[in-house]
Amino acid sequence: MAHNKSYTLGEIASLLNLELVGDKDCIIHSLAPLKNSSTGQLSFLSNPSYVNQLESCAASAVIVEAKYADVCKTNILISKSPYVSFAEATALFDESINTEPGVHPSAIIDSSAKVPDSVLVAPQAVVEAGVSIGENCVIGPGAYIGKNTTLGNDCYLHGNVSIYHQISIGNNVIIHSNTVVGADGFGFAFDGEKFVKIRQLGSVQIGNDVEIGSCTTIDRGALENTVISDGVKIDNQVQIGHNTFIGEHSVICGCTGISGSVTIGKYCVMGGASGTVGHISIVDHVKVSAMSLVSESITEAGSYSSGTWHMKTAQWKRSNIRFQQLDSITKRLKELEKMADEK
Amino acid sequence: MAHNKSYTLGEIASLLNLELVGDKDCIIHSLAPLKNSSTGQLSFLSNPSYVNQLESCAASAVIVEAKYADVCKTNILISKSPYVSFAEATALFDESINTEPGVHPSAIIDSSAKVPDSVLVAPQAVVEAGVSIGENCVIGPGAYIGKNTTLGNDCYLHGNVSIYHQISIGNNVIIHSNTVVGADGFGFAFDGEKFVKIRQLGSVQIGNDVEIGSCTTIDRGALENTVISDGVKIDNQVQIGHNTFIGEHSVICGCTGISGSVTIGKYCVMGGASGTVGHISIVDHVKVSAMSLVSESITEAGSYSSGTWHMKTAQWKRSNIRFQQLDSITKRLKELEKMADEK
Amino acid sequence: MAHNKSYTLGEIASLLNLELVGDKDCIIHSLAPLKNSSTGQLSFLSNPSYVNQLESCAASAVIVEAKYADVCKTNILISKSPYVSFAEATALFDESINTEPGVHPSAIIDSSAKVPDSVLVAPQAVVEAGVSIGENCVIGPGAYIGKNTTLGNDCYLHGNVSIYHQISIGNNVIIHSNTVVGADGFGFAFDGEKFVKIRQLGSVQIGNDVEIGSCTTIDRGALENTVISDGVKIDNQVQIGHNTFIGEHSVICGCTGISGSVTIGKYCVMGGASGTVGHISIVDHVKVSAMSLVSESITEAGSYSSGTWHMKTAQWKRSNIRFQQLDSITKRLKELEKMADEK
Repeated sequence: MAHNKSYTLGEIASLLNLELVGDKDCIIHSLAPLKNSSTGQLSFLSNPSYVNQLESCAASAVIVEAKYADVCKTNILISKSPYVSFAEATALFDESINTEPGVHPSAIIDSSAKVPDSVLVAPQAVVEAGVSIGENCVIGPGAYIGKNTTLGNDCYLHGNVSIYHQISIGNNVIIHSNTVVGADGFGFAFDGEKFVKIRQLGSVQIGNDVEIGSCTTIDRGALENTVISDGVKIDNQVQIGHNTFIGEHSVICGCTGISGSVTIGKYCVMGGASGTVGHISIVDHVKVSAMSLVSESITEAGSYSSGTWHMKTAQWKRSNIRFQQLDSITKRLKELEKMADEK
Repeated sequence: MAHNKSYTLGEIASLLNLELVGDKDCIIHSLAPLKNSSTGQLSFLSNPSYVNQLESCAASAVIVEAKYADVCKTNILISKSPYVSFAEATALFDESINTEPGVHPSAIIDSSAKVPDSVLVAPQAVVEAGVSIGENCVIGPGAYIGKNTTLGNDCYLHGNVSIYHQISIGNNVIIHSNTVVGADGFGFAFDGEKFVKIRQLGSVQIGNDVEIGSCTTIDRGALENTVISDGVKIDNQVQIGHNTFIGEHSVICGCTGISGSVTIGKYCVMGGASGTVGHISIVDHVKVSAMSLVSESITEAGSYSSGTWHMKTAQWKRSNIRFQQLDSITKRLKELEKMADEK
Repeated sequence: MAHNKSYTLGEIASLLNLELVGDKDCIIHSLAPLKNSSTGQLSFLSNPSYVNQLESCAASAVIVEAKYADVCKTNILISKSPYVSFAEATALFDESINTEPGVHPSAIIDSSAKVPDSVLVAPQAVVEAGVSIGENCVIGPGAYIGKNTTLGNDCYLHGNVSIYHQISIGNNVIIHSNTVVGADGFGFAFDGEKFVKIRQLGSVQIGNDVEIGSCTTIDRGALENTVISDGVKIDNQVQIGHNTFIGEHSVICGCTGISGSVTIGKYCVMGGASGTVGHISIVDHVKVSAMSLVSESITEAGSYSSGTWHMKTAQWKRSNIRFQQLDSITKRLKELEKMADEK
């Protein structure tokens, strides 16, 4: 869709630090995928399998690697990583990030909270005693920050986010709407009749450059802290249990549930709706497929999956009957092998 | 449970446009299932397997198909679709939908927002600049509507809902509490060391007669829009990724995760806690079973499932050991078949 | 981490009603696990497999069973259930539960609501007409309580919780942030072309001593009530469908989805991300493993599981190909057995 901002191609080349081949005065008003682009738009080629779309592309300019420069008949911006350059270009057209600092009169801010003048506090937000907010933060409408929680600089908490007390959040952290950080971990001691609550005395420690989606929950630790390391990206509807540690630059896709006391390494990817049991470790560079359950520690980098593929339900039922018999089926096979051996 | 409203059976017959056989002055104060009903209640028979409950039913009246009229000893309302008539009857007894229009003084509404007199804006709600709200809408307590978002007529946004900027919502849309529409899709470009955020410049477009449950998340598109078509019903705890398209009258049950760039056809049913990988298509009239993952496009209507049935854990472990050996088990079988052939 | 409260060991022994062996004047300022403890800390041994950590433990005191009293070189508190005693100890150090009663001026409370002087209503909360709140409750920032809902004594509703109308909540109930109780159950009647909403006229009835995590959703019943019995503990991101009944002291772990019209017995455990189809029953003392789906009623206590274990993806694909062929594989085996028999 068209945006309210526009740039000359020369300006974009300069802002993104890319080599321009073509008309530096060409006006770019928005971004578009290759196949749906038109005049005034900037597109990009990052996946080589779409190279055949380059020729017919109607965009006014395309970000490509140098090797594709000749294929393209329009203006080009040459990048070593067109997808990264495209990501940087999206920031140029994002109108949602223009905010005027200031505290809305309906926001309730405790007098002991530290809120610099560069911060925007939206209507109906609540900032409790002892909170410390860094420079240039945005606290969205209806968001709540509990006692003694600290935020670094350049954080963006969207509307109706709930941050409990004594949480530590680094710089440049984005938290989307209705997400909860620091609620009690799920801990109870069974006394033979009922469950006695274990008060959760730890906290949550979130590093720098972390993004957390909407309706996600990250529990505070029981005695020690739940830790989200620098550069971690967490999608919507994710649950992270108490005392869990997520290593740097790991990615947790939507609907994933990480149990308590789990350690996940660096540069891991937990696929959508995946999960882990509690008290396990996963080394660096592990990729877990969608809707897969990690049921014990993973000690070797690589790709892991569980579950079965979708099938027509009628066929799936037949496979399931056999799955239930699988141990006896295997024993029957062994019996036949023994008979064959004996002959 | 008994409600504060009551009607004569004649009034109900008239309001629901049904043929009444029996006492038109009989007073009905509430609705009940066949087997738990009593005097003053209206019940219904939609599932033929409950027909044996008709004779002993203690309700003052029952909605039935014409063919069951003789089985029933009480007053009857004759309907071609008793379940649909029952659904219509529930609206007569719903006290929660009586609302007085007006803007609560604690609500914060930007002066540029369009809020007709017929609209109720509850306490602590926030309506930002450029928002346009249609007639007879309800904006619940603590709900938040971001800049330039538009709502059609007769929408009901429950408490603590968060709607981001520039979202388009049709007529007669219900969104339950703490649901988030229009948060950023989950998109990053990896630069070899860290993930660079791709600003999500698209929007969400929601059609008419859509209902969305509580704590559900629908992400805005990256460059284009995420689309929820007319008549779609979405349950609680659902995640819908960026650029996904849900066709008319499809039903998404609770806890389901639809990845990004997915196309789902019309009249589909995604069962509870089901999911899809990204960038696939599902044709019209597909039904996916509970907790099933759709791992590639589905091109033929019908019912699909993945996963295995629940078993006693001890037996399940034995089947799982064999599942891991399944390829070698099959090869051993083939070997035996070869031996048998050779004889 | 160190806390602001401290006690002498004698005070703790007295508060927890435990036998003290050692220095009653020893100062305890916090709690810690055995292996990470230091001077001034109180630890505990509940899992016998950690008994070897007792000797080297640096805590100033440890809660142990009598039989381990001699192994421990430091001060000890003797308990029949060290884990329960530890749970009770956590309450002594929990600073988050000190709240001053009072209604914040920004909260909106209908004049017909009953709010005792012992209650704390935080900023931006909304309490609607006819609500009745018991003694010593806390209503968190931005929380919303709908018309005619009743809360017992000593309830704690955290920030941005949404409770719909006419809900009944017992004593000593904790509900964490952004959780929704009483939204409409997911019910529609299909009229051949579109879905007609079945208004949800039932309610939700929550017993005493219930804890509910964050971003969890519990739907109101269609005609009758959804019931959460005394002592039930529900984690984050859980969905509980309409008309479902959860028996006393059952535990529902994070990300679990319970469909509608399900009956779960007492002392059950639904593992993380588990689920059930609708209209089934599960007897008392059933344990369902993580990410398992209960696809029909369970009539016998015990442990149940579904799904498959995680494997390296390459091997898992081979097993999955065979899973799809499993019925024909079994038939091929039977054929060989018949041939062997005939010989």
